[in-house]
Amino acid sequence: MANVDLMQLVKNKVRSLQPYQVENIDCEIMLHANESAFPPPPEISKLFGEVLQGCALNRYPDPNCQALKSVLAKQHQVPPEQFMIGNGSDELIQILLQIFCDPGDGVAFPDPTFAMYAIIAQGMGLTPHSVPLDENWDFRAENFLEAIKNQPTRIIFFSYPNNPTGNCFSSAEIQKVIENFSGIVVVDEAYYDFSTKSFTNELARHNNLIILRSLSKIGLAALRVGYGIADPRIIEQVDKVRLPYNSNTLSQSFSAKLLNHFSPIQKQIDTIIEERKRLFETLQGFSALTVYPSDANFILFRVNPKADEVFKRLMENGILVRNLGNHPRLNNCLRVTVGTRKENDRFIEQLNAII
Amino acid sequence: MANVDLMQLVKNKVRSLQPYQVENIDCEIMLHANESAFPPPPEISKLFGEVLQGCALNRYPDPNCQALKSVLAKQHQVPPEQFMIGNGSDELIQILLQIFCDPGDGVAFPDPTFAMYAIIAQGMGLTPHSVPLDENWDFRAENFLEAIKNQPTRIIFFSYPNNPTGNCFSSAEIQKVIENFSGIVVVDEAYYDFSTKSFTNELARHNNLIILRSLSKIGLAALRVGYGIADPRIIEQVDKVRLPYNSNTLSQSFSAKLLNHFSPIQKQIDTIIEERKRLFETLQGFSALTVYPSDANFILFRVNPKADEVFKRLMENGILVRNLGNHPRLNNCLRVTVGTRKENDRFIEQLNAII
Repeated sequence: MANVDLMQLVKNKVRSLQPYQVENIDCEIMLHANESAFPPPPEISKLFGEVLQGCALNRYPDPNCQALKSVLAKQHQVPPEQFMIGNGSDELIQILLQIFCDPGDGVAFPDPTFAMYAIIAQGMGLTPHSVPLDENWDFRAENFLEAIKNQPTRIIFFSYPNNPTGNCFSSAEIQKVIENFSGIVVVDEAYYDFSTKSFTNELARHNNLIILRSLSKIGLAALRVGYGIADPRIIEQVDKVRLPYNSNTLSQSFSAKLLNHFSPIQKQIDTIIEERKRLFETLQGFSALTVYPSDANFILFRVNPKADEVFKRLMENGILVRNLGNHPRLNNCLRVTVGTRKENDRFIEQLNAII
Repeated sequence: MANVDLMQLVKNKVRSLQPYQVENIDCEIMLHANESAFPPPPEISKLFGEVLQGCALNRYPDPNCQALKSVLAKQHQVPPEQFMIGNGSDELIQILLQIFCDPGDGVAFPDPTFAMYAIIAQGMGLTPHSVPLDENWDFRAENFLEAIKNQPTRIIFFSYPNNPTGNCFSSAEIQKVIENFSGIVVVDEAYYDFSTKSFTNELARHNNLIILRSLSKIGLAALRVGYGIADPRIIEQVDKVRLPYNSNTLSQSFSAKLLNHFSPIQKQIDTIIEERKRLFETLQGFSALTVYPSDANFILFRVNPKADEVFKRLMENGILVRNLGNHPRLNNCLRVTVGTRKENDRFIEQLNAII
């Protein structure tokens, strides 16, 4: 009988971590996770059904994701050799950290931002350096680089637009960081479809730039498809360390189908952008709220004075939003995903009743 | 314009790796990857179609895989808290190395064995220690532990049955390793369904034992579902470092369906076991071959004298097997996955014509 001291076997970098809790409360209206408000429309669902029927589930996936890469290559007018496919962008973040960092190395990003940059880095024994955003949730390149200059920083992450603040940072400042930082700069454009602002055109000029994109915000969150675009030599390194079958067959083939039949998805995106405008203006009408402009499919707002109570009452009334109050810069802040017109109306109605 | 020295930014542990090449040759008969010869039968495909129809693809997966874990818990008579779900077992191997190893730490396994133990370890900056198997592809616990005693070994992996040799190591020797090694012992039972030999009953007695299983060999390779069973405190650590949405919705729900409707799958497994017997006996009839007994869904054999030529001629005739000749202990060795009766007949027929 073996009875070892398990916790003593667990490495410090992991033992010291707090478990990452995904909110998993079942509400009627889910506006907490920045998912698309719409499932893929019937014409695309039908195509998915056909793909499934023709799929040899007993065979391993294409380890090179060739069909999906060729659709992406056509869409972006970039050679297939410049794409990496991940089991969600999360996995690509992890792989990039594995390639460019050894334990102790630093990973920098503005703050507040997408929590996974720090969480993934910590799980790998790396050192996250967060640089506070200014009062407009923006930054100056000079200050940013100054703040990290004494740290051995290998990679910088910019969420563009930034989750959870919703804005796009000044592109000129990101540009300056790319040009003046001697390491890797990742521009995470997970919410690109709602901003249409991108650094993809800069890829040809800067070999230290990596763009991340996702299909999770436009209808395929269930299938975990993120992709990256970068210098082909970076892709070669990714291919060395990623697990050979990291992207499964249905994720690859459903994504390719969706990208090849994008016009109904674009209509859904356009609807969300319209609803974002309407929701933003409506929220601005509440005197108890400070509402932050958004280029994404969600809106950040500050509640005066008790966001916890608002969060709880919304939940009791079947509406789940994200409570960000644990972050020191986001006290009394909530983040609401832009839903369908009906969902947004219900949210406004409830909010109205509460505050 | 940024033009950094990219290769100088890539860490040594990754720069020094060779790219992992998955054989991706399209042949009529694919007997190279130890996949199931059979796709899920029509009655199960129909259920999958229904699951897809009812699935909200725009929503993130259940990060806790509750439905799948509850099916597994029932099947194994082990609480759900003892299961980890991976995007393939590959991912679980990586996560376990992340938890129990820091760079430089050693990972041990017999040799030859499943190549991914070493490949994943190297990509993470760990040190693989391989201990040669004896002439019967087996080992003695005492010798194994002696061989690694001067190395800082944190985890030992046993592939059971062993890929690519096909045999199960002596269970008493594995048992001794579990009882006498002060680190973690992973028994990778990816091919369990074809051996029906397992260490799951030992879990209650040894808290350093982790069992890995897979659905990739029994019809769901496309969907990347591996799972592990371990002490709940190990699962807690896994949950800290795994990406929260590592297992996608369809992989979770198709797996649960398949496990809940297992009798047609069991029939397929029984057919493969019968075919393995027939194929083994037929191969033994070839005087030019040394055939190794198998508890898995593949058979290893040595060709006298030119396996490369046999491999090539089989391929030219539409049959892909695995050529293992690059391994010093496996010169002139090929591994053939047990296929359908018809596929096996074609394979034998071609082999007969070649040698």
